Amino acid sequence: MDNTKVVGLVIGALLVALSVIMLIPVLAEIMAESGDWAAFVSGSVVTGFVGGALMLANQTEERDLTHRATFLVTSVGWLAVAAFSALPFAFSNVGLSYTDAFFEAMSGLTTTGSTVMIGLDRAPPGFLLWRSLTQWIGGVGIILTAVAILPFLRVGGMQLFRTESSDRTDKVLPRPGQIAVAIGEIYLLLTLLCALAYIVAGMSTFDALNHAMTTVATGGYSTHDASFGYFDSALMDWISIVFMISGALPLVLYVQTLRGTGETLWTDTQVRAVIVFIAAVSIIMALWLAARGDYGFFDALRYASFSVVSIITTTGYASTDYTLWDPFAAMSFFILTFMGGCTGSTSGGIKMFRLQILTILFRSQVRQTLYPHVAQTLRYNDRTVSREIVFSVALFVFIYVAAVLATGLALAALGLDIVTALSAAATAIGNVGPGLGSTVGPSGNFATLPDAAKWILSVAMLLGRLELLTVLVMFSKDYWER
Amino acid sequence: MDNTKVVGLVIGALLVALSVIMLIPVLAEIMAESGDWAAFVSGSVVTGFVGGALMLANQTEERDLTHRATFLVTSVGWLAVAAFSALPFAFSNVGLSYTDAFFEAMSGLTTTGSTVMIGLDRAPPGFLLWRSLTQWIGGVGIILTAVAILPFLRVGGMQLFRTESSDRTDKVLPRPGQIAVAIGEIYLLLTLLCALAYIVAGMSTFDALNHAMTTVATGGYSTHDASFGYFDSALMDWISIVFMISGALPLVLYVQTLRGTGETLWTDTQVRAVIVFIAAVSIIMALWLAARGDYGFFDALRYASFSVVSIITTTGYASTDYTLWDPFAAMSFFILTFMGGCTGSTSGGIKMFRLQILTILFRSQVRQTLYPHVAQTLRYNDRTVSREIVFSVALFVFIYVAAVLATGLALAALGLDIVTALSAAATAIGNVGPGLGSTVGPSGNFATLPDAAKWILSVAMLLGRLELLTVLVMFSKDYWER
Repeated sequence: MDNTKVVGLVIGALLVALSVIMLIPVLAEIMAESGDWAAFVSGSVVTGFVGGALMLANQTEERDLTHRATFLVTSVGWLAVAAFSALPFAFSNVGLSYTDAFFEAMSGLTTTGSTVMIGLDRAPPGFLLWRSLTQWIGGVGIILTAVAILPFLRVGGMQLFRTESSDRTDKVLPRPGQIAVAIGEIYLLLTLLCALAYIVAGMSTFDALNHAMTTVATGGYSTHDASFGYFDSALMDWISIVFMISGALPLVLYVQTLRGTGETLWTDTQVRAVIVFIAAVSIIMALWLAARGDYGFFDALRYASFSVVSIITTTGYASTDYTLWDPFAAMSFFILTFMGGCTGSTSGGIKMFRLQILTILFRSQVRQTLYPHVAQTLRYNDRTVSREIVFSVALFVFIYVAAVLATGLALAALGLDIVTALSAAATAIGNVGPGLGSTVGPSGNFATLPDAAKWILSVAMLLGRLELLTVLVMFSKDYWER
Repeated sequence: MDNTKVVGLVIGALLVALSVIMLIPVLAEIMAESGDWAAFVSGSVVTGFVGGALMLANQTEERDLTHRATFLVTSVGWLAVAAFSALPFAFSNVGLSYTDAFFEAMSGLTTTGSTVMIGLDRAPPGFLLWRSLTQWIGGVGIILTAVAILPFLRVGGMQLFRTESSDRTDKVLPRPGQIAVAIGEIYLLLTLLCALAYIVAGMSTFDALNHAMTTVATGGYSTHDASFGYFDSALMDWISIVFMISGALPLVLYVQTLRGTGETLWTDTQVRAVIVFIAAVSIIMALWLAARGDYGFFDALRYASFSVVSIITTTGYASTDYTLWDPFAAMSFFILTFMGGCTGSTSGGIKMFRLQILTILFRSQVRQTLYPHVAQTLRYNDRTVSREIVFSVALFVFIYVAAVLATGLALAALGLDIVTALSAAATAIGNVGPGLGSTVGPSGNFATLPDAAKWILSVAMLLGRLELLTVLVMFSKDYWER
């Protein structure tokens, strides 16, 4: 393998940074005079030690990563950060096993939000803060990965966004470092605005900070077992709806909109489609609920919008157990679990641009079928889409569905019933959070699943987060051939 | 619309032929001295009258169909034959509503095999024979449609087989009519061999003829409520396994193998993959069942193979309720419902060649990702596969999954639970037969579904049978534009 030293160096640096972030919950524990600070100190020391050792052992003048090594560093980097983020959970007085701690950390970092924790309302503040922080850093982590790395790895049609950002960066943001800083600023700003709004609506500062982090990261971890339903506030629900959507839009577009250069949020095809789709589905669902007589229209609109936005943005908050509404609602949410928001955001799932590319392909194929001798070109967002991108996108969707079925099969082999197995697989790969049924549904908890299921789901969350192929490529013979 | 007269003429001719075939159950009723012959005479008279009238009203010298009109004649032709095949069911003493009769006829013609009939063991012989006949004529109907029509409509990558058959037909079977006759002969021969084998194994002649027709057509209608489990014979199970597989292979290849020209059954990539896949899945399932201690290995192999072959070939016989084995088995069979056998056979589903094309695409994309500057070509069955075919295949699989989800959503809106809704949708579009759960599962019956669900599923069966796009194309604006 080439670049072994650079790979080691990068992962070491990631761990050292992680060990510093682990000190934030220490402060929270000390301020709250809670007794769980030692877990974070120990976690930080171990992580920092391993990270530092890796950095020292891999000193090199090299800075460039080959294509091949980039796959490795991306996958192993995310895996290593999850493995070490789990340490404070495992060391804490809460008493999670390492399996549970790893699941919780992976679910956090991938902004999935499925939890094995029962008793959040009584959990130490540092513990709660660390859960929110894993989602917050995981969120900005995936945005940077999606903007800076995946387009170059040409996975799942992400090369579509390579052309775009290179075109623009020449003019607007010359260096990758500058893009990263600009995105980080927007992300922090959105989080602070969200926290402020929650506080104004009556949330405690601690709850507001935690929920702001997990809202903008479209993660969905809450500080209460009842999730967002704990607050039972229409105002907070609507604030959350706005900021979940804000986190599911491409962060780069905020930067461009603010600087007034290039494509803006209002003109982007993907953004428009996501917003129209969310509005349409929310209204249909609200009408359905109102027609059933469960709620008046405005309550129906609130609950429907919250749940629809929570699932489409892949956040996963629950304000009510929508799976109890009826089979139509449950099936709708199962299907929405596959959707996802925009690429270059914190949301998971298949993502809107891929569905748009496939829709365009459908129209073009219909025309091709009717007029076999007329060449058809595919255009998306005012650009011609190359065949290679269409192949990538189509393959991605196929692999995505296959991965859900395979994961579901593995879970069923462990004895999970079909609805639980299939919805847990879909929610893990889509980085959404809740599935269907009493165990993994919105009012359930992943704690009672067998350990093997937790490991399978952890792998599924990582696979989904890295757009599947980034990881799967390394399992091909071609990857290891010289 | 162009060719209106030819369309009317072809559909009229189909109905006249159907009215003649309807007289076969009349003979059975008279021979068995059963009192239900009038249903078939009435059905035949009405069908023959409408068909004859259509032919007379559309006399034309024209013989060529445009591309556009071919979509129409294919879809409307199948629909019309189903609508009139339902008449004897509706007219019979058994007393089915037209909804139930239409469902039963569509399920028969599309070789799906889902049934709304309860009390098959006591049903009139003509009624049972007509059920089997709908599957038998539907089976040969879809083979001829797949060989002669779909490749020219360029739906779902079927153009792959246009090139093939045109290449070969020049040498082996000069005229389309000759191919049709040769395929018909093979189909009849397989059916007679199957019936003979069943008789030798101890089945009554009537049961043997009926089951031979529904085995080779991979349809799955039985003359007993307990389906194939009624016979409880290992020998009959194995005979059925062989002939279900024989019906799921491309019929054209039998012709070529017998004439010793062109590709043979043994050298075809798709055939090999189907057989290896069936063997592998059967053995894994048998080992799983044996390890659970439900059966000894050889009994496990018999039951596993029968069920696996029944689902993969999209026949749908049940010899035992495999959904009761455990969640792993149930999930496996749900996934297998999507598979299907070979194209150009009577089986439904996504079909092996499409999965192979996508596998080849996966390998090529991995290499493309690793070596961005090396052009990759796709080869299948020793031919280069054009990009257009790959697009068609990928789009087909996407539309297929989307259609299953949309149908499942519609069924859920009628109040069906998720497992029932999703598996009924998948089994209808795949033309398989049984789904999961107590209603639509192998030991259930579709009779208790709401009427709206029966109509939705009937449409889904037709959509699946005609490879989705043949029908969906007509719903595009482009189709109706001049």
